[in-house]
Amino acid sequence: MEFTLGQVAQILQGKVEGDENAKVSRLDKIQEGKPGGISFLANEKYTSFIYDTEATAVIVSETFATSKILKTNLIRVKDAYSGFTQLLEAYSLMMKTGMEGVQEPAFADPSAQLGSGTFRGAFSYIGKNAQIADGVKIHQQVHIGDRVKIGKNTIIHPGAKICADTVIGANCEIHPGAVIGGDGFGFAPQADGTYKTIPQIGNVIIEDQVSIGTNTTIDCATMGSTIIKKGAKIDNLVQIAHNVSIGENTVIASQTGISGSTEIGKNCIIAGQVGIAGHLKIADNTTIGAKSGIIKSVKEKGSTLFGYIAMDMKNFLKSYSIFKNLSSVENRIKELEKKK
Amino acid sequence: MEFTLGQVAQILQGKVEGDENAKVSRLDKIQEGKPGGISFLANEKYTSFIYDTEATAVIVSETFATSKILKTNLIRVKDAYSGFTQLLEAYSLMMKTGMEGVQEPAFADPSAQLGSGTFRGAFSYIGKNAQIADGVKIHQQVHIGDRVKIGKNTIIHPGAKICADTVIGANCEIHPGAVIGGDGFGFAPQADGTYKTIPQIGNVIIEDQVSIGTNTTIDCATMGSTIIKKGAKIDNLVQIAHNVSIGENTVIASQTGISGSTEIGKNCIIAGQVGIAGHLKIADNTTIGAKSGIIKSVKEKGSTLFGYIAMDMKNFLKSYSIFKNLSSVENRIKELEKKK
Amino acid sequence: MEFTLGQVAQILQGKVEGDENAKVSRLDKIQEGKPGGISFLANEKYTSFIYDTEATAVIVSETFATSKILKTNLIRVKDAYSGFTQLLEAYSLMMKTGMEGVQEPAFADPSAQLGSGTFRGAFSYIGKNAQIADGVKIHQQVHIGDRVKIGKNTIIHPGAKICADTVIGANCEIHPGAVIGGDGFGFAPQADGTYKTIPQIGNVIIEDQVSIGTNTTIDCATMGSTIIKKGAKIDNLVQIAHNVSIGENTVIASQTGISGSTEIGKNCIIAGQVGIAGHLKIADNTTIGAKSGIIKSVKEKGSTLFGYIAMDMKNFLKSYSIFKNLSSVENRIKELEKKK
Repeated sequence: MEFTLGQVAQILQGKVEGDENAKVSRLDKIQEGKPGGISFLANEKYTSFIYDTEATAVIVSETFATSKILKTNLIRVKDAYSGFTQLLEAYSLMMKTGMEGVQEPAFADPSAQLGSGTFRGAFSYIGKNAQIADGVKIHQQVHIGDRVKIGKNTIIHPGAKICADTVIGANCEIHPGAVIGGDGFGFAPQADGTYKTIPQIGNVIIEDQVSIGTNTTIDCATMGSTIIKKGAKIDNLVQIAHNVSIGENTVIASQTGISGSTEIGKNCIIAGQVGIAGHLKIADNTTIGAKSGIIKSVKEKGSTLFGYIAMDMKNFLKSYSIFKNLSSVENRIKELEKKK
Repeated sequence: MEFTLGQVAQILQGKVEGDENAKVSRLDKIQEGKPGGISFLANEKYTSFIYDTEATAVIVSETFATSKILKTNLIRVKDAYSGFTQLLEAYSLMMKTGMEGVQEPAFADPSAQLGSGTFRGAFSYIGKNAQIADGVKIHQQVHIGDRVKIGKNTIIHPGAKICADTVIGANCEIHPGAVIGGDGFGFAPQADGTYKTIPQIGNVIIEDQVSIGTNTTIDCATMGSTIIKKGAKIDNLVQIAHNVSIGENTVIASQTGISGSTEIGKNCIIAGQVGIAGHLKIADNTTIGAKSGIIKSVKEKGSTLFGYIAMDMKNFLKSYSIFKNLSSVENRIKELEKKK
Repeated sequence: MEFTLGQVAQILQGKVEGDENAKVSRLDKIQEGKPGGISFLANEKYTSFIYDTEATAVIVSETFATSKILKTNLIRVKDAYSGFTQLLEAYSLMMKTGMEGVQEPAFADPSAQLGSGTFRGAFSYIGKNAQIADGVKIHQQVHIGDRVKIGKNTIIHPGAKICADTVIGANCEIHPGAVIGGDGFGFAPQADGTYKTIPQIGNVIIEDQVSIGTNTTIDCATMGSTIIKKGAKIDNLVQIAHNVSIGENTVIASQTGISGSTEIGKNCIIAGQVGIAGHLKIADNTTIGAKSGIIKSVKEKGSTLFGYIAMDMKNFLKSYSIFKNLSSVENRIKELEKKK
């Protein structure tokens, strides 16, 4: 989409210095600005770039004083940084929610209910009795299973698979290739060494304002529900097993895995490549460092844990600093042994 | 699907106490029962819930004696737990295998052979000379490459990709987004620092009763076959490299990675986030703890290994318990050094 | 595809000994040769297999002397190994690039530009203003977002998702289920404990001759570009976060994760399950062992690092060898304490 600088200034309640009719279609960093892009200057460190940038326009504060001749146009606003952020959000929202209607061929079972202002991309599939609220965007090649419910304005990105009976709240984003509600990993060992599949008949419930990352997998509950609570943000390639519960506003970084039936509290921060064993409870406001292994419940709120078998982060780092010189530690013992 | 309590009682060879015509369409936990659900009571601990549950019916044993008035209907069977399990399996099977025929648009090359009782979902693709046996369910957006063979009653869940020349046995489940038979990671270093792609012309063979988890990747062999043997169960986001062989009834949990040409024995249990180097042999009945790194072959059957560089699990835990207090260990050395 | 031995000999500039009209359609290992397959014998260790192989033909060197009667046909060439490799590459190329045209139904926005010799598989999607160069193969169920540019002869394997604004060079391979250009993981903490989504409006740039593994995820930049430079090879299930830069000819093995804004140099080798923190710089020619955690920049070129918190590999292994016997080390301290 293209805008004139006049239109942008109007959105930002600012003033154009230069060509009001120049057009921009992209947001650029000031040091990488190209024709057709609009940048911002809020940090003095970057001031020198404004004289060389090829961006069509730069958003600056009302008080910005030029020291050389400019090649670019200016849009003056009260606060350049928040002006740019405002533009960024408007742009991002427009890109994500601009679509409506159906791209054919798309498949929707006649029993599915579709709200107003929804979008269904080509090769998307919607199963029986699915309920899709107003403003939901179902991108290309998405799969929505039978009886799935999706709340208002949620975006399901290309190729995500939402399996049968999943419930997703409003204003969520499910990123490409994520799979919500695949079977939990449940097998009962038999006397002859084989395994019998334990039917997984539960579902996944995702509350409002949740983000699920690309190619992340969230398994349905064996019975009952795997639950991701309001405002939780989950990164790419994360594994969340059956019957797990993730608390409100908890953030989980990439490639972390959470085993079956574990309950994570609210406002936790879990870094990347962490592994958490099954049937644990992690208290609210827990912080877990990258690559940590958690094998017991965390009872105290606000703990900060780290380590291969996680412990208090400071203690782990103290032990690890000695581990790094363990051969010199052993030499000191040898020395003592000689002298005894 | 909906059943009357009379129909359920007939399946379970039990008797209804209450309304034979009440309908159920869902299996609920007794403490979370809602109208339209059916629960079971097998463990005395849960007895109190039967008087409050909103479930339409509860399966109980023939001998269950009520101590208060019930709001729910009962189905009396010999053994409530196995009765419920039986219902669970019947329900799960019905949900998974109830479909037949074709949802259009679906693509199948005219040279592909399709057995009776098969299902092909919308936007599924079947390549040249593929052979799909009776009862195979190919869900929406699945990709079946050229010359792929799939055995009886196997289920390929939405969006799974089965690349050319893969062979899959009977009664397998390939979960959503799994990719079977993608190219192995083989590149030959050249004198100038670049890499030349080594053609990967082998395939993947998956035997009967294997389960492959969501978004898991199993690479084809460079030449010959990557093999997953009968009854193996593989969880989500697992990586299995080219020319690996996984033994019968071996279980591999989420996010584990197995490097090229490694052979895993039968009846092994490999926990989550384990990494196994290439060209190793892991003996039968080996157990490997979560997050372990395996860098040499395991020769003794029945070993239990654990650790960042894995070793006998007990020994690792002993070392780690000292590591946790390494700064106090060092203090003891300092103390000795002072006194010498 | 099928070839007569005469045709194969012509490609390899060799001579047939046996039936020139026998047909082969497959490349086999000599010890696993079956009718219809062609093998090679270059290593003396395997000589005995040539007398028993069921392969239709075996490629041997001009000087190979038989000691028994052969059941198989021979193709004599100057160097059997390089002859076979040549055949392998020809075969692999033919399998991957043999397709042209469109399998319907496929979706391409009328504004998309498609070069000559391109292929679009069934259920593939191409968005607005996408530019697809000559010879590009877009397999089934692939998603190409708006304004994506793809260079000559690149192959996008089944189900890969290339999000809006991504730029991909020539002669790349994007393997099945990979997602290029999904949103970066950026959320600004708010005073009330919730998170606000930071718009991700940058893109991904992939240069020429890059390979991206199955189900790997590469996030778009917050602003600017996430960049994968020429000749880099990235394995399956790898996570590359927003604004990361990967240098030329760097190789990254499976399940490794690289956090936001980190710059990896050229000709690095990064093994599997490695985690690299954000905002770091890793020097050229760095080697990182499997499962390592990198938390600070690597300044010296050609370093070899390893460890849970990575350090010089030799030093880590020295420390770890003492760690393995830490309880006996502690016993030695106890012994000293007794005697003091």
